[in-house]
Amino acid sequence: MTRDIPEISLQRLPVYLNYLKSLSGDENKYISSGAIAVALGMGEVLVRKDLAYTSSAGRPKVGYVRTELIAAIEEYLGCNAKKNAVLVGVGGLGRALLGYGGFANYGTDIVEAFDNDPAKIGTQVSGKKVYAVEELGAGIVRCNPTLAIVAVPAAAAQSVCDMLVKAGVKGILNFAPVQLKAEQGVVVRNIDVAANLAIIASML
Amino acid sequence: MTRDIPEISLQRLPVYLNYLKSLSGDENKYISSGAIAVALGMGEVLVRKDLAYTSSAGRPKVGYVRTELIAAIEEYLGCNAKKNAVLVGVGGLGRALLGYGGFANYGTDIVEAFDNDPAKIGTQVSGKKVYAVEELGAGIVRCNPTLAIVAVPAAAAQSVCDMLVKAGVKGILNFAPVQLKAEQGVVVRNIDVAANLAIIASML
Repeated sequence: MTRDIPEISLQRLPVYLNYLKSLSGDENKYISSGAIAVALGMGEVLVRKDLAYTSSAGRPKVGYVRTELIAAIEEYLGCNAKKNAVLVGVGGLGRALLGYGGFANYGTDIVEAFDNDPAKIGTQVSGKKVYAVEELGAGIVRCNPTLAIVAVPAAAAQSVCDMLVKAGVKGILNFAPVQLKAEQGVVVRNIDVAANLAIIASML
Repeated sequence: MTRDIPEISLQRLPVYLNYLKSLSGDENKYISSGAIAVALGMGEVLVRKDLAYTSSAGRPKVGYVRTELIAAIEEYLGCNAKKNAVLVGVGGLGRALLGYGGFANYGTDIVEAFDNDPAKIGTQVSGKKVYAVEELGAGIVRCNPTLAIVAVPAAAAQSVCDMLVKAGVKGILNFAPVQLKAEQGVVVRNIDVAANLAIIASML
């Protein structure tokens, strides 16, 4: 699936998708790149360039057929390809993620969870079974996940990352406030919630 | 606090901070921009440029004094300035955020929470009282928050954002998968967890 799209454009595709889906179908059969740009506070050229990475083609004067553009972005983002994910760390955040319905919109399903707390191992959270972290390797063989979510404390995150990479996981979403090191070919993205809040405060 | 730092550099400061704090003090009195660059897989020029925005100055040959650099980044990010935040939406994610200790590292404290569920209103979650959303305006007068966190479903997010902006909040961290519109001068950052996972899958 490696393509020429810059990461920054790729990051904007879900933003367009959310916006397009938020419009009512009756009044918005067509939508122009200009209208999208105004609604999202972006430049029109940028919008057109981003959307050109998907297979969708705008029509002169009328713009894109909204449903076709949605389908093209979803196709590009792989929303229709079912992908298994595993989650490591069933604390407050992990619990929230297991209960979150939004992953299905992108074809992702968290199928198993892992923790090192004996009180949690063997239980179910939002219908997902919690296994011992020691079983992570076996779990990855079982689920064959495309992705893993790391929601453990900072001190444990790198060793969990190493276990995941060793077991063959190629994509990791990390919530621990630490920069994970992984071999080349493994994609790691970080979401540091507290840092995001600090960045906002710094921008005020 | 408006400064000339590009947002992309600002975003990297917490990454440096986390890395510097992860090092043991005994063996790392000094650290060079080159060593930081290697550890984080970045270019040395970029690291030096980013760090130059803070008041810290590296010394020829030895580099930065690690504790001084940490202090400079923390100062720049306002970690020592106490900032109140309010949270709207006490679902699974909101609950996890209320229990998250990491905000304190950046001087942020979630002081009150708001929800529209009568079963939650009046309860305490991780020691924070939950008020009715209708009381949001009064709560903002009471807490004078620098920041607000929006963790409500997508359909409710814009109206919550409008209430926050009307009440004078200037910084919003939004977890709802929808692009919020706010007047100029209000900083909104979005964390779309499901989209991040889809982006990783698209990059594999």
